[in-house]
Amino acid sequence: MDTINIIGRGNVASHLFLALKDKYRPIIVNPHTLDELDRNAPLTIIAVSDSAIRQVIDRLPALQGIVVHTSGSTDISVFYKSCIQKFGVLYPMQTFSKEKKLNYSKIPFFIEASESSVLSKIKGYAASVSDNVREASSDQRKKLHIAAVLSCNFVNHLWALTDDYLKKQGLQFSDMIPLIKETVGKIEELSPKDAQTGPASRGDKAIINEHLEALSSDNNIKEIYRILSDSIMSFEKCNENYGV
Amino acid sequence: MDTINIIGRGNVASHLFLALKDKYRPIIVNPHTLDELDRNAPLTIIAVSDSAIRQVIDRLPALQGIVVHTSGSTDISVFYKSCIQKFGVLYPMQTFSKEKKLNYSKIPFFIEASESSVLSKIKGYAASVSDNVREASSDQRKKLHIAAVLSCNFVNHLWALTDDYLKKQGLQFSDMIPLIKETVGKIEELSPKDAQTGPASRGDKAIINEHLEALSSDNNIKEIYRILSDSIMSFEKCNENYGV
Repeated sequence: MDTINIIGRGNVASHLFLALKDKYRPIIVNPHTLDELDRNAPLTIIAVSDSAIRQVIDRLPALQGIVVHTSGSTDISVFYKSCIQKFGVLYPMQTFSKEKKLNYSKIPFFIEASESSVLSKIKGYAASVSDNVREASSDQRKKLHIAAVLSCNFVNHLWALTDDYLKKQGLQFSDMIPLIKETVGKIEELSPKDAQTGPASRGDKAIINEHLEALSSDNNIKEIYRILSDSIMSFEKCNENYGV
Repeated sequence: MDTINIIGRGNVASHLFLALKDKYRPIIVNPHTLDELDRNAPLTIIAVSDSAIRQVIDRLPALQGIVVHTSGSTDISVFYKSCIQKFGVLYPMQTFSKEKKLNYSKIPFFIEASESSVLSKIKGYAASVSDNVREASSDQRKKLHIAAVLSCNFVNHLWALTDDYLKKQGLQFSDMIPLIKETVGKIEELSPKDAQTGPASRGDKAIINEHLEALSSDNNIKEIYRILSDSIMSFEKCNENYGV
């Protein structure tokens, strides 16, 4: 059973540990001390925040195996001026929270490597966890990361703002769940463009202005409302959907 | 079997027709001619865009039954200066597209009425379709509508922008679906605030600036990226999640 070093203490490290533990012997390594590191492990995964990757690389002892990082936005060139010979990237495109279990087999893993023999080894590890392993260049990966921020992080933040807004009004976010589920359900059948509904999609400026007026005590939500409504109106000028 | 007039030709009218057709005799009425209207119907539903509701009310002949509109943001007072005596609101909080089937029983219906006897009748009709019928004042309903715009319309638009962005890069939106499903799956277990991940949530300004730089050819997405990242950073200063 291959040993795999996982350097990191965050959610990605914890989830990779869970994803790998049935087929390998993963070890969680403290990124500050690197004490637990197995120098003979065939794979070492650096699962730390982007700003810490370079520092971890610089402090690694000589390692037998392949070293990868897990970041969407850090270029593979972060390994170039190091002593590491066999390196790559293993980017799981998913949102990881400690408290939430995941089906790892559905997570797209985007991989990249220093050379083709390393790539096939990384592919083997990734494929043992996920059914969806793809090659992506550093440039493509950064674009996928931006897409993930738009599609996941910003979406979740809109829900956080909604939760906050409704609480202040004495209303409950749980009433939004059927609507949110359907919003997602639709894009499995329709393109997001075809699924768009709402006042901005109908070009209903009277309602948009009423909502902006009603939001006058919350400048942040108001500004987000204005910019996203403008964006919807300029994005799609011919949309017949109607709802919400 | 009660006849129900449904005035409108959009997605809400079509879906209400489908939701009501097993228990009632719904008639779709053209809002321009009002020709098909059954004056003895116990319920008439005005399912037209907000800006057209008042015009439809003004052109209605004398009706025996209750008249409701279906809008989130139009006040019940739209009926005040009309000849209609028994009136109310039946607001289904959902995103309706013609091409997408729905489970109507899960849709929250928010209702309001001119008087309590009318309210109980509207409640009866709504409860025959949905398991989740609630009273809400016009003011609460407008807030729920704003929340729905934030949680659904804007969220879908972020996906439309992502789809467009990835297409331009030769990448595919379908790779985002597992991430999007998990983003929604999380908020059934965690609050959106606790579920937040991503560069802004980690306060990672280096990555945020790299992304803004990479988006320099798309001013609209760049501005949305900047504003939502700022909003996340100011919204939650202590968040340990890590991912995407």
